[in-house]
Amino acid sequence: MVTLGLDFGTNTVRALLVRTDDGAEIAASVAPYEHGDEGVLYDDNDPNLARQHPGDYLTAMEAAVQGAMAEGAVDPSQIVGIGVDTTGSTPIPCDASGMPLALDPRFAANPNAMAWLWKDHTSHAEAAQITDMAAKMRPNYLKKCGGKYSSEWFFSKILHCLRTDPEVFDAAHHWIECADWIPAILTGNQAPGRYKAGVCAAGHKAMYNDGWGGLPDAQFLGALHPKMGELRQRLFDKAYPANVSAGSLTEEWASDFGVPAGIPVAVGAFDAHLGAVGSGIRPGTLVKIIGTSTCDMMVEPTTTDLADIPGLCGIVNGSVLPDHYGMEAGQSAVGDIFNWFVDEFGLTHEAMTRQAEALRPGQSGLLALDWNNGNRTILTDPLLTGLLVGQTLHTKPHEIYRALIEATAFGALVIMERFEEYGVKVERVVNCGGIAEKNPMVMQIYADVTGREMFVSRSSQTCALGSAIAAAVVAGEYPTFEAAQDRVTGLKEKSYRPNPDAHRIYRRIFSLYKDLHDAFGTQQWHGNLGHVMKELIAIREGARR
Amino acid sequence: MVTLGLDFGTNTVRALLVRTDDGAEIAASVAPYEHGDEGVLYDDNDPNLARQHPGDYLTAMEAAVQGAMAEGAVDPSQIVGIGVDTTGSTPIPCDASGMPLALDPRFAANPNAMAWLWKDHTSHAEAAQITDMAAKMRPNYLKKCGGKYSSEWFFSKILHCLRTDPEVFDAAHHWIECADWIPAILTGNQAPGRYKAGVCAAGHKAMYNDGWGGLPDAQFLGALHPKMGELRQRLFDKAYPANVSAGSLTEEWASDFGVPAGIPVAVGAFDAHLGAVGSGIRPGTLVKIIGTSTCDMMVEPTTTDLADIPGLCGIVNGSVLPDHYGMEAGQSAVGDIFNWFVDEFGLTHEAMTRQAEALRPGQSGLLALDWNNGNRTILTDPLLTGLLVGQTLHTKPHEIYRALIEATAFGALVIMERFEEYGVKVERVVNCGGIAEKNPMVMQIYADVTGREMFVSRSSQTCALGSAIAAAVVAGEYPTFEAAQDRVTGLKEKSYRPNPDAHRIYRRIFSLYKDLHDAFGTQQWHGNLGHVMKELIAIREGARR
Repeated sequence: MVTLGLDFGTNTVRALLVRTDDGAEIAASVAPYEHGDEGVLYDDNDPNLARQHPGDYLTAMEAAVQGAMAEGAVDPSQIVGIGVDTTGSTPIPCDASGMPLALDPRFAANPNAMAWLWKDHTSHAEAAQITDMAAKMRPNYLKKCGGKYSSEWFFSKILHCLRTDPEVFDAAHHWIECADWIPAILTGNQAPGRYKAGVCAAGHKAMYNDGWGGLPDAQFLGALHPKMGELRQRLFDKAYPANVSAGSLTEEWASDFGVPAGIPVAVGAFDAHLGAVGSGIRPGTLVKIIGTSTCDMMVEPTTTDLADIPGLCGIVNGSVLPDHYGMEAGQSAVGDIFNWFVDEFGLTHEAMTRQAEALRPGQSGLLALDWNNGNRTILTDPLLTGLLVGQTLHTKPHEIYRALIEATAFGALVIMERFEEYGVKVERVVNCGGIAEKNPMVMQIYADVTGREMFVSRSSQTCALGSAIAAAVVAGEYPTFEAAQDRVTGLKEKSYRPNPDAHRIYRRIFSLYKDLHDAFGTQQWHGNLGHVMKELIAIREGARR
Repeated sequence: MVTLGLDFGTNTVRALLVRTDDGAEIAASVAPYEHGDEGVLYDDNDPNLARQHPGDYLTAMEAAVQGAMAEGAVDPSQIVGIGVDTTGSTPIPCDASGMPLALDPRFAANPNAMAWLWKDHTSHAEAAQITDMAAKMRPNYLKKCGGKYSSEWFFSKILHCLRTDPEVFDAAHHWIECADWIPAILTGNQAPGRYKAGVCAAGHKAMYNDGWGGLPDAQFLGALHPKMGELRQRLFDKAYPANVSAGSLTEEWASDFGVPAGIPVAVGAFDAHLGAVGSGIRPGTLVKIIGTSTCDMMVEPTTTDLADIPGLCGIVNGSVLPDHYGMEAGQSAVGDIFNWFVDEFGLTHEAMTRQAEALRPGQSGLLALDWNNGNRTILTDPLLTGLLVGQTLHTKPHEIYRALIEATAFGALVIMERFEEYGVKVERVVNCGGIAEKNPMVMQIYADVTGREMFVSRSSQTCALGSAIAAAVVAGEYPTFEAAQDRVTGLKEKSYRPNPDAHRIYRRIFSLYKDLHDAFGTQQWHGNLGHVMKELIAIREGARR
């Protein structure tokens, strides 16, 4: 049998056909979103704004599925299920029928009526307000999301819309996560009360927890704004993991896709979480999904007595593997930083990589912070920015390029250390995503910086593969995600082992990174940085000898 | 009558013919140095190294003077004197006859036998040792050079040569400043005991002070290394201001230049100090000579009870105007930082300036430190490096370009504040050098950052003009430098007044600059920098509204 995994990324949607008995990837097709700059609508006057047109999801999905079906030449009757993952939190304001306001001609040109993309940071004031209010009224809410509610998340964005564009807010009957909207559309269940919300989005971004009765209560939301309290009852009551079916594929979509009508569509989840499934996540395995940003996922069985880990984006039962706590950490920008640098300065990744590879650790004398898009874990602060130190009159672009890569590796190490501080042992690191696949220099730097072997997932489309696994489970091909993973996922042969000499130098630089991290990123640090430039010079002189 | 001013810069030598009665600049010619990268020999493995070939000074001088004489078509009999300024401290190792070792075939390829250019920073360990030794043995030595002996200076470089290339050190009978060597060569007085050392180089860079009997004593130098103590007696005893004649032009050079033999050649001084003279320096006037680096010069009459000012490069009687204390401050890199940025990233000053001009203060959210070549004043620390903070994924190259310019303006303001803290009032600021002349944006930013009107010197060749003034004084055309300045120097009509709104914003950013300055540049600062990125974002948001 074959399942279809749909992966809605930041710039494109991918359709993947997977043979359920051995994980063979029969066909894949990618389609871009029509609007904006590679699918993202920006605002030159506000670097925090990032939106998407929800109509783009549907047209791109159609093209991608039809492309994969054409390429795979599979007998349609073999297709037994569909799984969906998307970026998030990407809330979409909808009318009472479940139609996105952006598809209403009145709002067609209004970015506030679009999907608010995960990396939209316009709502930091609202995020701070929600954090403060929760600290006062519902401190337990904060314990599962790292102690701080984020500007990237569901209620921050909705509250910001209410504050800055009440017309859109008032026109919206409810807001739906992109991860819930796609299965709802595919199954004809977009109306409120009919669609099945995923626990992954709800738990990580909307403070959903069965322990306190689902979403935050109306009294709490109403304390933010009375209209937020009223919105509460127009949202959903219960959220589900991705091994549950959201419904059956409609005749219309079945005919569009060329697959059987009535096949089950799994409840949607975030790309990173299903990507972790597609990378073979298990307790002890850290899966790093490295793209424009990273998600760093771990799981622990729900039988474990797990501490609340400060600074993590969330700890949610069933968000990755059913009956496991899914733990999400991440870096707000990784590939985005490298792309920013080469794009703005007219460079190429190829040339930069070729030259940067020849550098020894510490040789450039440079040190950067990886906060050009804020810091997700462990500082959970979008109002942080990049920093570069150590420039001389001889500093070369490829040296800065390498320093930016090293900065993201240091950021990755901070996350690993945070997991372990709280008893979640990182026994194995599996990387996936384009950078992990295509850039051995980045993987070697990550190994050298962290002192850990870097494995790479066998599939190059782990998110779509995770969706296909969910599809296989809801179609009854496997009883559990783990049973499917055993047959369908694996590692590439090539891994990256840390070089002890390089690791020793990077430990010295990491200690300086931590000084900058704490000095600029916390209010608690108290000290002096007079040693930073001097130690970087000393390390540089050592590396050049 | 006409005098000839010779200005030996970092990349070229300039010859200027000046009419003594009104300062008319009759002709000017510039010639490049033959060796290295624009006249400077670098070492790819050591960003601190910067040398020059002394033979280049002579061939370039000949070409420049001949060019100016040809262009000016002056009756040779009108030429009554020659003045000389050079970069410094630029010591040259010489044999017993006064010939630079670099002209000896044995050493022709050895960079340690070349002129050690002012911006050579190989000697920081030696500078620290000299500072430590002086603090222990001769604390008074340090009071006149800002509390710290620099790696850019005479004895640091000589001691570094002794440590790292004893063969060159042993072959050298003595070392001579470039500013002393040129007049010595022109007057046939290059032999030790015959050349007249200038007090400008000696006082600012070689700890010369009549108050303690001239150069540092042999016991002190011997404590650094016995051979340094022995060298002391092969150096000079007395140093002179530039209103004293170093001797008469030889027949050979007179014939080469096409000017009368026997005309007086003034004692040499540093370019910045004679540039300050050519810019009309007086008590209360800060002259900023803005080039690859800056020199910031002030004078006070020797009748003033002047405090020792910590962090200044030097306070020397007669180094600028006779009978005045000359005070030298400066920034180790200014134009060099802008050039580094556009050169390394394949940009142009024109495009960057055009786009950066359109930005409002604070709009980029960026803040930089101007330490890519260390910090000369007030930290006197070459082991500092550049820093840039505030980058997002939307940061543009021209925003960084403007941030680098602003960083140099903040550095300039730190110097002004230090002068005034110690009672030296900055009543007027006169800028000179290519950047002051050609880049109105830079001048406006300097006005807006410092809150002071920026004037620009009328002459665009103030250093060479200062040399021509020295020549006019030694030729007896004027009794004093001041009398010559009254006739010969002036200001351009166009000046730059601070915009109060811009200044208010820059005061906020300057306070953040000071935090970074003290946090990274001193060992005393103790605090937290968690506000820096947030305030830059707040200022950015304000500027964009």
